[in-house]
Formats: sequence, C-alpha cells, structure tokens
Amino acid sequence: MSTLDAVRAEVAELHRELTRYDLVVWTAGNVSARVPGEELFVIKPSGVSYDELSPEAMVVCDLDGNLVEGTRAPSSDTAAHAYVYRHLPEVGGVVHTHSTYATAWAARREPIPCVLTMIADEFGGDIPVGPFALIGDDSIGRGIVETLRDSRSPAVLMANHGPFTIGRDARAAVKAAVMVEDVARTVHLSRQLAEPVAMSSADIDALYDRYQNVYGQQALATSGDTL
Amino acid sequence: MSTLDAVRAEVAELHRELTRYDLVVWTAGNVSARVPGEELFVIKPSGVSYDELSPEAMVVCDLDGNLVEGTRAPSSDTAAHAYVYRHLPEVGGVVHTHSTYATAWAARREPIPCVLTMIADEFGGDIPVGPFALIGDDSIGRGIVETLRDSRSPAVLMANHGPFTIGRDARAAVKAAVMVEDVARTVHLSRQLAEPVAMSSADIDALYDRYQNVYGQQALATSGDTL
Amino acid sequence: MSTLDAVRAEVAELHRELTRYDLVVWTAGNVSARVPGEELFVIKPSGVSYDELSPEAMVVCDLDGNLVEGTRAPSSDTAAHAYVYRHLPEVGGVVHTHSTYATAWAARREPIPCVLTMIADEFGGDIPVGPFALIGDDSIGRGIVETLRDSRSPAVLMANHGPFTIGRDARAAVKAAVMVEDVARTVHLSRQLAEPVAMSSADIDALYDRYQNVYGQQALATSGDTL
Amino acid sequence: MSTLDAVRAEVAELHRELTRYDLVVWTAGNVSARVPGEELFVIKPSGVSYDELSPEAMVVCDLDGNLVEGTRAPSSDTAAHAYVYRHLPEVGGVVHTHSTYATAWAARREPIPCVLTMIADEFGGDIPVGPFALIGDDSIGRGIVETLRDSRSPAVLMANHGPFTIGRDARAAVKAAVMVEDVARTVHLSRQLAEPVAMSSADIDALYDRYQNVYGQQALATSGDTL
Repeated sequence: MSTLDAVRAEVAELHRELTRYDLVVWTAGNVSARVPGEELFVIKPSGVSYDELSPEAMVVCDLDGNLVEGTRAPSSDTAAHAYVYRHLPEVGGVVHTHSTYATAWAARREPIPCVLTMIADEFGGDIPVGPFALIGDDSIGRGIVETLRDSRSPAVLMANHGPFTIGRDARAAVKAAVMVEDVARTVHLSRQLAEPVAMSSADIDALYDRYQNVYGQQALATSGDTL
Repeated sequence: MSTLDAVRAEVAELHRELTRYDLVVWTAGNVSARVPGEELFVIKPSGVSYDELSPEAMVVCDLDGNLVEGTRAPSSDTAAHAYVYRHLPEVGGVVHTHSTYATAWAARREPIPCVLTMIADEFGGDIPVGPFALIGDDSIGRGIVETLRDSRSPAVLMANHGPFTIGRDARAAVKAAVMVEDVARTVHLSRQLAEPVAMSSADIDALYDRYQNVYGQQALATSGDTL
Repeated sequence: MSTLDAVRAEVAELHRELTRYDLVVWTAGNVSARVPGEELFVIKPSGVSYDELSPEAMVVCDLDGNLVEGTRAPSSDTAAHAYVYRHLPEVGGVVHTHSTYATAWAARREPIPCVLTMIADEFGGDIPVGPFALIGDDSIGRGIVETLRDSRSPAVLMANHGPFTIGRDARAAVKAAVMVEDVARTVHLSRQLAEPVAMSSADIDALYDRYQNVYGQQALATSGDTL
Repeated sequence: MSTLDAVRAEVAELHRELTRYDLVVWTAGNVSARVPGEELFVIKPSGVSYDELSPEAMVVCDLDGNLVEGTRAPSSDTAAHAYVYRHLPEVGGVVHTHSTYATAWAARREPIPCVLTMIADEFGGDIPVGPFALIGDDSIGRGIVETLRDSRSPAVLMANHGPFTIGRDARAAVKAAVMVEDVARTVHLSRQLAEPVAMSSADIDALYDRYQNVYGQQALATSGDTL
C-alpha cells in the first residue's frame, strides 16, 4: 500500500470515531491528515454520509486547498484545514465538528476552565475561544492558527461555530476532538449546580508536564493513545 | 422499479434516520414523500414499529389524505402532511417528530434564536413557533403552512406539540428534522449557563446566501447533503 | 406453543425495549405479564443480565407473588407486581424502571405537568406521584394501586424511587414506561429555561378522548401502538 | 483454564460494560481484579483501545504495581489500584472512570446526597468525595482507601478527577461504577429544578440492611447482581 493509500484508509477509518462518540450529525464534521513527505493532505468529500466513507471516497488536496485527486468536491471546510497545514508545519491532522457541548461553550464565546485533571493532562489549561469568522476566505484558518499557535491546547472553540482540533497526526486530532467534547460536557454539567473548584496553576503544570513527558518517553504520543 | 416503488423504498429507508438520531420513541414520528408527477404521497402507517418498516408496509394517500393503497391505516398525522402538500407545491417531503429538545422549546412556545453558524446556514434565522392546534381537522396543517410560507426556515415548532419540517424532497425534510433537534439541543445547553452571543443580521444573511447558493450550484441541494 | 410459553416469550422480548430506550442499567428494571385465564403472571428473575433473558429464564408466580415455576428467584419487585394484579383485574402488564428523568421528578415528589399534546394523549393529565414506601411488604403495591385506581395515567412516580406503569397488556405497560421517560425528559428540559405554557383542561380532555377512542375503535389499543 | 487466565478473561470482558454504559471515552478508564490466592492483580494495559481488549492483552502486576507479565505497560492508574489491594484485603476488584455526571460532582467536590432508594440500597448513604491528589505517587490510592475504609459506599469521587469504585470482585466494582454514574445523573437532574426530598437515616438504614442481607443470604452478592 502506498503512503497515500494508507493515509486515505486512516482518514476514512477515523471518521468512525466521530460517529461513535456522537460528535457529528448528518455530514457535519470532517477529519484530514497531512500526507508525509508531500505538500498534500487527505480530507473527507463534501456531503457524503458517514456510512459511505470508504478510502476511495476520500479526496486529496494541495496545501492551498485545491483538489488534486478524487471525484467529489472536498469538504466545505477545506480552506481552513489547508491554512492550518500551511502555517503549522508540526501539525499532521485537523478535525472539525459541531459537537454539542463544545459548541454550546462556543456560542457563549466562553473558554472551558481547567477544573479537571483530564483537562490539565490533555489541554494544559483553559480551552480557548477563537474569533467569529465567516466561511469563504482564510478567516477561519487564521483564527485557528492565531489562537493555537502559542497555546498548549490542541483545541479551539470558534465563536458561534464549533471546535477545531489539531494533532501531530490525524489520530491525535481526533482524540482531541473526543476529549474536548467530553470535558465540555462534564464542566458544563458541573457548573449547572455551582462553580467547580479551581485547580492551581502549579498543579495544572505538574499534571500537563508529567502527562506529556512520561508518555512521550514511551513513544506513544503520536498515536494519541496516551491515557 | 416504478416511481411509486422507489418512493416507498425511500420513505421506508428514511425512517431509519429518525431512530439513528434518537428523534423518535416507540412509533411517534413519521416521514412522507410526494410521488413525482402524481397527486399522491407515501407515508408511514399508523402504529407500526420502526423495526418493521419495509417498503411494502408504507401506505399511499391522495392529497386529501385518503388512503389509496396499503393494508394499514395511514399515520394519524396524515391530514397535516396532506395539507402541506396541497398548499406548498414546492414541498416534496414532510417529517414530524417529538424530538426532545425541539419539543422542549415548543412547550415554552419560544423560537430558537439564530446564534450558531449552523442555524444561519440551514434555517436562515430564528426557528419559528407555530400555533397551538388540536389534531382532527386542518388546524395543524394550516399552522405549519402559515408559519413556514414566508420563512426561510424549513422547520416549525408547533406549540406544546413538536417540530414539523419540510424539504424539496423527503431526504431534505429528514435532514431538517435532524438539524433542528441538533441546534435546539446546542442552544438549549448554551443558554443554561448564560445568554449566547448574538450574530448580526448581515452575518446571518451572508452565511445563508452562501450556503444555499454555493451548494445549489453544485446541484446537491435536493439531496439535503449540503454540509 | 402454550399460552404460558407465549407469555414467557413476550415478557423476555419486551425487556429489550427497556434497554433499547435506555430505561435501565445493570439489572434494575422488570416487566411482568398476567397469564390470560390463569391466576398467574410471568416476571423477570432477579439479578439476571438483560443479555441472558431467554423465555426459559422467565419465572412464573401466583398472584400472591409465590414462585410457581422457574429455577431462579423472581424479581425483588415481585410483591408489588402481584399486588397490582390482585387489585386491578383489568391490568395485564406491569413495568418498573429507575429511568433517569422520571426518577428525577420522583426524587422531588413532583408530578409531571401536562404541557405537551403527547402527555394529554397518553396520560390524560399530570403524571402523579405515589407515596414513599419501603420494600418488603405491600407498601409499594398499595401505593401504586391507590394512586392509579382513579387516574387516567398508566404511570406513577413512586417517591424517591422511580416509575411503575400498568397496561391492558405487557406491551402497553412497556409503552407507558417508554413514554413517561420521554415526556419526563422533555418537560424537565423545557422548564430549565422557563415555565412551559399550560394547556387548558378542555384541550387536554379533547386530546385524551380522541386518542383513546379513535384508536380504540381500530382495535389497536391493546397493543399499545396507538401513536 | 488456569485461575490467572480466567481472571484475564473476566477483566477483558468487564471493560465492555464500561463502553456499554458510556462510562469511558477513548482509553480513559480501567478495570482490575485481584488474582485469588496470589499477590497479583490483572489490569488493562495503557493506551489500548477498548476494541482491542482481548484476554491476552491484559497485563499482570504485583501488589506494588510492578509489571509481572505482559508486553504492554500497565494502565497509568496502576499505582492507585495496587495501593487499594495492599491496604484493603477484602477488595477483589477496582474500577476507575471519568464518567460524566460523577465527575461533574467531583469537580465541585460535593458528595452525592442519598435521596433515592437505589442510593440507599447500593451505597448506604451519601457518596463521598476524596481529596485532590496528583498522579505519580501513592496520593490517589491513599485518598481512596482513607475515604472508603470506614464508609458503606463502594464509590469515591476523587476531587477534580473522577470516580473510583471497589468490590468484593471485579464485577461488583464494575456494577458500582455503573450505579454511581446512574445516580449521579439522576440526582443532578433532580436538583436542577429544585431540591430533592430527603430520606430519613432510619429509612436509609432499613433499605441498606435489607438489600445487603437478603441478597447476601442468597449468595448472590459477590456477583454484584443484586438488584
């Protein structure tokens, strides 16, 4: 199997995690992956049901978001994915969903506060909000990059829109999409009855450093399976 | 396969989307589709489990809601579907559910405010509330038509009852039913903690116009798969 | 197949609806059915996983709740089911769950107000709360019967405990268990943001009468599939 | 099958209950079981998907948490499990999740009040909160043991982290993990609209004693299937 075929297969397969964790309805979410060693990425076609996402259905774009290979139009979010790949060379995967709880925070333009050990582990602090941006030019991609460039968080809540996540590879970006919804839900629920207890910056740093480094030494980090 | 058989098969198949997205319990929801070129529509029979919805089980009605073909009584909501087909000729599909979050807004007779890009894309503004109407005559159908006739929204929240959605075809109406529940849930949750940030009318118009037109040019809009 | 075997098969099968609609966790819910023409009923055995509920695993009790046939102990709620069958001869099925939203109302000892057409159709008014009762004697059964004897509702929320439902047959009781959770959830959510709009007694009566009678004339009512 | 192989098979199998009841996302939860008659326990490996949890994938540790058998690193929570087995000899199983509602209470460091008969039955009173503890030494294990040693509850909500549960065997600990999430959710929802009605200490004691003893006499208690 060529590298490109392997990436197609991985991207097709990873979309199943979006439905498994109820992060998407209808066709409203997408995963992409950079093709190693090429100026290309693989992304979901637009308007195709998650039941029909075979490796062959995936499309290939260049880093300006132009369709290079495939019979369907690429996802309508392709420009945002492409912008991220152009500006963040360490990123190997991007995911976008409208998952319910994360989007509920995004509609209020409110960061998710770091009040759980799992948030400290995975996001290293509060999960930030990005700007309001209309689709159709580079606004969304620029908002993602400007928010995440200097953040520990692999997730950004785009205002009134929904979460985008990044990772060293597509699997890590999918993991971040799963985790951001999970903690968005838990903190939402917790705050419904009263304010959660804050964690200190020192504790957050200790948890984040241990989580990223201990697991990193085991060479598992790129798989995103570090819990 | 005749046109009528194709419509039966499509309507049977589309009911699976209602259960997949948890829009219905027991037998409490239904999909119908106009038969192209005929004064007929296909609808779910009354009181049949979603496990047993084969194409053959579907029933055919004329536009007054009279049973034309089939061995079971048509859905108890048939009169409402028929009224819509008689008065809105561009409508090819109608869906009714009691999906939880949309019905929760309906019980308060409160429109869902357009505070998400997805709402602007799909509904073009707030999702409106229809009048309170008893079953048994044309009241429900009239309420749907009067509310949606001059609206961009393909969904109406009938007071103390639940959502009805329309579309150019049945698949588009099902998509609207899925989407109205999804945004009803997200905005509900967002408002539990504080008021979501409003979007400007200009931004809503820009999103709606782009979404409807760009995708329309790709001739995908009738499939409802435009995200 | 003997009548008794048919009832065993039906009771086994109906437990799948409890898991399908997420009304139960672990082994915490049960269905029973009166055996037509006998002073017997069939009920789930105690402490058996819903994965293992074959017809053969069901147990048979007399109307005092004594085990008549079967190798496992009957459900720990058997005394309550037996009391209902002894005192309400028109009842052919009983269901008990701790479904989440219905139990949340029960913990506040608060009736579910009739603010949805679906509640008027199925329950004919508010869904009542029963007394607080300890397990171990006839208290629970008595509380169910005293609450439901003069009510249109087939469901009672036992205080700090959970819902019990009754029906002309077991399928109708299961339907009521599904519906009480569905409307408990919808009204709960609706009230989180503001008070739902009340319906008039006249409208509730009109909906209830039509629903029970129109469908009754179609001889469908005993199946519980009247929506 | 050797005892050790049987324990491996049971631990592998029990992880399916965590996904069935939506207690875990990605790889974020684990079950362990003490090996009868040995100073060993079996636990989930770190960072392995729940789809791949075969008996062979399970790893074996001694009671200091050192890996004794297996090709993968043990769960990152192994030290906490080991501490529990060293200090509570009657414990045969330990489970850790970040289940949503239980974790929401943990983020507020608030015990779950005993306002349901199910809580009285299973937990014998309020479900307690443990201290805030960083991963990396014995802090978490010590917090679990100090909180549960003198409690009737088999579950503790570790502050800002999530629930840990214990049982006479692994199945009982899994049951407690399922039940703590179920009651955390129900009480959470109930309190959203108003304060649930309290139960008296005498009623709680009566329910707990009956539940533990009646079922205990039937020798079912170790299976955890006592509802």
